[in-house]
Amino acid sequence: MSLRSLGMEMHCRCIQTESKPIGRHIGKVELIPANSHCEETEIIATLKKTGQEVCLDPEAPWVKKVIKAIMNKSR
Amino acid sequence: MSLRSLGMEMHCRCIQTESKPIGRHIGKVELIPANSHCEETEIIATLKKTGQEVCLDPEAPWVKKVIKAIMNKSR
Repeated sequence: MSLRSLGMEMHCRCIQTESKPIGRHIGKVELIPANSHCEETEIIATLKKTGQEVCLDPEAPWVKKVIKAIMNKSR
Repeated sequence: MSLRSLGMEMHCRCIQTESKPIGRHIGKVELIPANSHCEETEIIATLKKTGQEVCLDPEAPWVKKVIKAIMNKSR
């Protein structure tokens, strides 16, 4: 089984990040901590309607707010 | 194209959540906000070595800490 098939990538997945606050369109978010294959934390949002994957900037205040909102809305 | 193939599920994916703090074994984390198909926020971690998917409790303090740590470790 390759690492890729395990959902792990051997390199960074994001080339550029979305600057517009698209929080309301997000269906799910993947957080990939920095690791030996990519030294940046990567955040990849999947959009609700299109399923398009969009990279987000972990440093952007609106991105931090979106993550916090998802965590706080549980239950 | 089905919603499933877009990475969206038509029902909740988690039946039970991991209670042990397995933060150091996590390769990536998916956050799925509550939606019309599942009224709970779901957090699914993929383990580094095995690729196993493990559901985490969004309410557990150690889970909140892990998410915060990933966000803060960027750059």
